[in-house]
Amino acid sequence: MKVVQLTSDKKKIEVALTPALLPLYDVENSIVVVIDIFRATSSMCYGIENGADAIIPVSQVEECIAYAEKGYLIAAERNGEVVEGFDFGNSPFSYTAEKVAGKTVVLTTTNGTHAIHLSRKAKSIVIGSFLNLSSLATWLKDQQENILLVCAGWKNKFNLEDTVFAGAMVDKLKGDDFRIDDSAIAAADLWELAKDDLGGYLAKTSHSERLKKLGIEEDIAFCLNVDMTTAIPVLDGEKLVKL
Amino acid sequence: MKVVQLTSDKKKIEVALTPALLPLYDVENSIVVVIDIFRATSSMCYGIENGADAIIPVSQVEECIAYAEKGYLIAAERNGEVVEGFDFGNSPFSYTAEKVAGKTVVLTTTNGTHAIHLSRKAKSIVIGSFLNLSSLATWLKDQQENILLVCAGWKNKFNLEDTVFAGAMVDKLKGDDFRIDDSAIAAADLWELAKDDLGGYLAKTSHSERLKKLGIEEDIAFCLNVDMTTAIPVLDGEKLVKL
Repeated sequence: MKVVQLTSDKKKIEVALTPALLPLYDVENSIVVVIDIFRATSSMCYGIENGADAIIPVSQVEECIAYAEKGYLIAAERNGEVVEGFDFGNSPFSYTAEKVAGKTVVLTTTNGTHAIHLSRKAKSIVIGSFLNLSSLATWLKDQQENILLVCAGWKNKFNLEDTVFAGAMVDKLKGDDFRIDDSAIAAADLWELAKDDLGGYLAKTSHSERLKKLGIEEDIAFCLNVDMTTAIPVLDGEKLVKL
Repeated sequence: MKVVQLTSDKKKIEVALTPALLPLYDVENSIVVVIDIFRATSSMCYGIENGADAIIPVSQVEECIAYAEKGYLIAAERNGEVVEGFDFGNSPFSYTAEKVAGKTVVLTTTNGTHAIHLSRKAKSIVIGSFLNLSSLATWLKDQQENILLVCAGWKNKFNLEDTVFAGAMVDKLKGDDFRIDDSAIAAADLWELAKDDLGGYLAKTSHSERLKKLGIEEDIAFCLNVDMTTAIPVLDGEKLVKL
């Protein structure tokens, strides 16, 4: 008798819309993509592209200071201003080759670090942003693994920009090789709505209002550049390095 | 000196995309709308419309049995079949006037009961579905309170049908009187995509596949009838009664 394999062996693409939902997913059997578009993961992609040896994400300004003694560059801001004594803030424009090539940078990011920490058990953790969208999609396709797109959100809540990026990635990956969940379907549909005028679409979010008040509209526009870079930051211990 | 009130006193419309996110919201200062489109909250709206004295949502079949001794109708199903010894299953077609008028029905619903339980501290808890969309929207507008739309989801995960309904409600309510959060923006955009062919749009979800296997396509189609009823079920103690 011929035994027919009925269980689908397709890999999954899932979207955890906020880190608070991570306990519901099979993180251990997935490659995790951490997404924090405004501005942490965009700055990470740009910094690794520009030759930073490593980027270390931390959640507290105080942790950052401890690293300064090791000769690392430290980056932190509060209310849109570089914290006194720090080398620079969180603007992606601080991550040029001139500033970071050959250096290790310690970057303060509450939501991004939280998402990375909760994803620890993943097969691997890579960093996504619009900057490295296509490059990351190509690599992810080649891995033949379950993919979990983790939106860092805002204090564990859903945010639109991270979800729209997740949707862009789902759109690149989807096809016969993957099963996708409802949040991936929704994210892809939001990307479809947003893609022709990404800045305009995201301008209506509350987060965008907050960022405008900080005077960082140029950062925001920069973070929405699609495929400006090809480097893929991957977590190695505590450090993000080039894959 | 004239003191200008700068703090916005606009009320909020927020969407908790799954019950797992409820701890992030100010439930105590909100009216909660519980949403479990396939099929719990649709059946509740239909049953209360059709003259049921009360509907008691419970999560376990065993709890339901305890109520049978009180002379209540009990409703439960497993894998699409009415559980042996029960009066009927979870199909909205079981909630006709003929069957439920003047009766109290105990309904088993895991996701719906979970969402209601976690919303206990709300100013009030009402039940929403496409069936009573406009009627509920009109009432909500009149309350001048913060509104928290709670998607019951599936085992704490995001699902598309509950979110699309939340979006329909946001679309009815939004305007100068309310501030809306990112999840409300996203939900409203998904409703905009879905509204012209709600059944077609939702057919692509994984949940829909599961429901098809249970042979309840007619239930699904029924649950997508917009404005078929006007009654608003409201939680009074353990019971849902007509507002």
